[in-house]
Amino acid sequence: MSNVAFLGGGSFGTALGILLANKGYKVNIYDRDKNVVDDININRKNDKYIKELNIPKNVTAYNNLQETLNNSKFVVLSVPSHVIRSVSRSLKGKVDNDAIIISIAKGIEEGTNLRLSEVIEEELPSNKVVILSGPSHAEEVAFDIPTTVVVSSKDKDAEAKVQELFITNNFRVYTNNDLVGVEIGGAVKNIIALAAGVCDGIGYGDNSKAALMTRGMAEIVRIGQKLGGNPETFLGLTGMGDLIVTCTSPHSRNRRAGFLIGKGESTEEAIKDVGMVVEGIKACRAFYELKEKLGVEMPITDVLYKILFENKDPKDAVVALMERERKSEIY
Amino acid sequence: MSNVAFLGGGSFGTALGILLANKGYKVNIYDRDKNVVDDININRKNDKYIKELNIPKNVTAYNNLQETLNNSKFVVLSVPSHVIRSVSRSLKGKVDNDAIIISIAKGIEEGTNLRLSEVIEEELPSNKVVILSGPSHAEEVAFDIPTTVVVSSKDKDAEAKVQELFITNNFRVYTNNDLVGVEIGGAVKNIIALAAGVCDGIGYGDNSKAALMTRGMAEIVRIGQKLGGNPETFLGLTGMGDLIVTCTSPHSRNRRAGFLIGKGESTEEAIKDVGMVVEGIKACRAFYELKEKLGVEMPITDVLYKILFENKDPKDAVVALMERERKSEIY
Repeated sequence: MSNVAFLGGGSFGTALGILLANKGYKVNIYDRDKNVVDDININRKNDKYIKELNIPKNVTAYNNLQETLNNSKFVVLSVPSHVIRSVSRSLKGKVDNDAIIISIAKGIEEGTNLRLSEVIEEELPSNKVVILSGPSHAEEVAFDIPTTVVVSSKDKDAEAKVQELFITNNFRVYTNNDLVGVEIGGAVKNIIALAAGVCDGIGYGDNSKAALMTRGMAEIVRIGQKLGGNPETFLGLTGMGDLIVTCTSPHSRNRRAGFLIGKGESTEEAIKDVGMVVEGIKACRAFYELKEKLGVEMPITDVLYKILFENKDPKDAVVALMERERKSEIY
Repeated sequence: MSNVAFLGGGSFGTALGILLANKGYKVNIYDRDKNVVDDININRKNDKYIKELNIPKNVTAYNNLQETLNNSKFVVLSVPSHVIRSVSRSLKGKVDNDAIIISIAKGIEEGTNLRLSEVIEEELPSNKVVILSGPSHAEEVAFDIPTTVVVSSKDKDAEAKVQELFITNNFRVYTNNDLVGVEIGGAVKNIIALAAGVCDGIGYGDNSKAALMTRGMAEIVRIGQKLGGNPETFLGLTGMGDLIVTCTSPHSRNRRAGFLIGKGESTEEAIKDVGMVVEGIKACRAFYELKEKLGVEMPITDVLYKILFENKDPKDAVVALMERERKSEIY
């Protein structure tokens, strides 16, 4: 049985590490924060990211990358999207060519607008890359609450291996061969979740949020199809499923950041209060640029961009969005 | 300005009545319950259905059908689906032929499996029929929280008139010419919401519910397309939008009934505790029959039917549903 390395001891990485440890794997977690490493190794906890964990003994945390990678045929990049490139680059020459690289981040790279699997491939061209995505709050995965996710890769063999690696009775892993759709759906839904949070923050109700999510779904499909994704993927777990969980669950950081902004906090204050990376903010900037370039209509992304980066009043912006003149539903 | 008649003083009818009264219409509400009539006329309240209302003076409640219909060119059937036929029949010879009949119920007729607009047309063949549907909890409409809905009819002129009748800044009304899709989406989503409630009741988390809703959406699209609906409609307000609000909002009776059943109550106990009609239970029976007849795969409806009517243990049933053997997401 191979070891599995996790680069980053955040909430989802830790939850997946526990899952694999319970399947009998030796799990190595790298984290740059010595307190996280000690908390895992000494207290069997990771209080910085998820409270009340019991981390099994076959999970070991390291402050040293090479030790973490030791004998690992699966390497999970459990870091936010904006450091996927630097972390991949740090693996050059250290990771085996036949190790499968797994990304669990959601976003696209700002500046290049590349999908994360493309970024990893640029840095590690010899390795197979697999994306794991879907409606999966770490807090629930860590406590073995039933969850379904999707794995996708250009390489069917690597995809099947990662499916086999993670699958349990309560963690159902499906394959989907539409890598573009899986990655784009996961990235854009964070924008819609932020906007849904704004909606909640300004005191709107469930009716308003459902309308926003429905229009957000249309936005995901429009940009996703333009980029080459399959519409069916957007209606599946990594699109609609993940959108629902992110827009409605109290666990979601994106929704929470939006909520605080809707309540009147600045973007900077909200990021600080959430205390973890808010992927939707980065995604909003990247997709704003991309939609302008490609000429795709993304009214929610547009409005959110103005709230986040141009100090537009959230209430005025959302009211204007809801009142956009349109008579017929299907257009 | 015409009067508007509402047949049934339930929560959504009352909320729409208040909306129209605030637009200046004279609104007549018929209810068979004399206490509801008195509460509206004397106290300007409807505490049986929504608390803390202030009902405007130009809303009058009646115990008499003919008085309610007086000078009404719009007649709203604000009753549950199973009495749409008897209420329509009671209007024969009493309602003007040029009055537009508006249905706000969601379901299909048990036994005939007719859509509600078809039922109304059978009973009142001279009148135009318009369906109003979408993510619109009465509690929020009554308090003017932004809401978007859809109107649909075979008659474009009647559809436009009803759009104009109800539209306000905070109650956005779109048209959709796919009457079949609008009616079927609204009916089936109640089944999925019940199942989502069961999921919550047995203690599953947001990840599980998102997965169930995603698969529920696929179920709506499958049966809806088979019956002639447009897939785009199911992704819109009356499909996905209404599904989201019904599955996640604390206001939803269908979700609440499912929750109680998930907690161990019998179907009868749950209906009694909810205290209002639970459309999803009736819809489950009707669509179970329909799917068997048409050979459409509806695994959630199937499982829910067994829980509701064959005493299958909710937990065992949902576990079996989640674990159905499937490797690839798109099938």
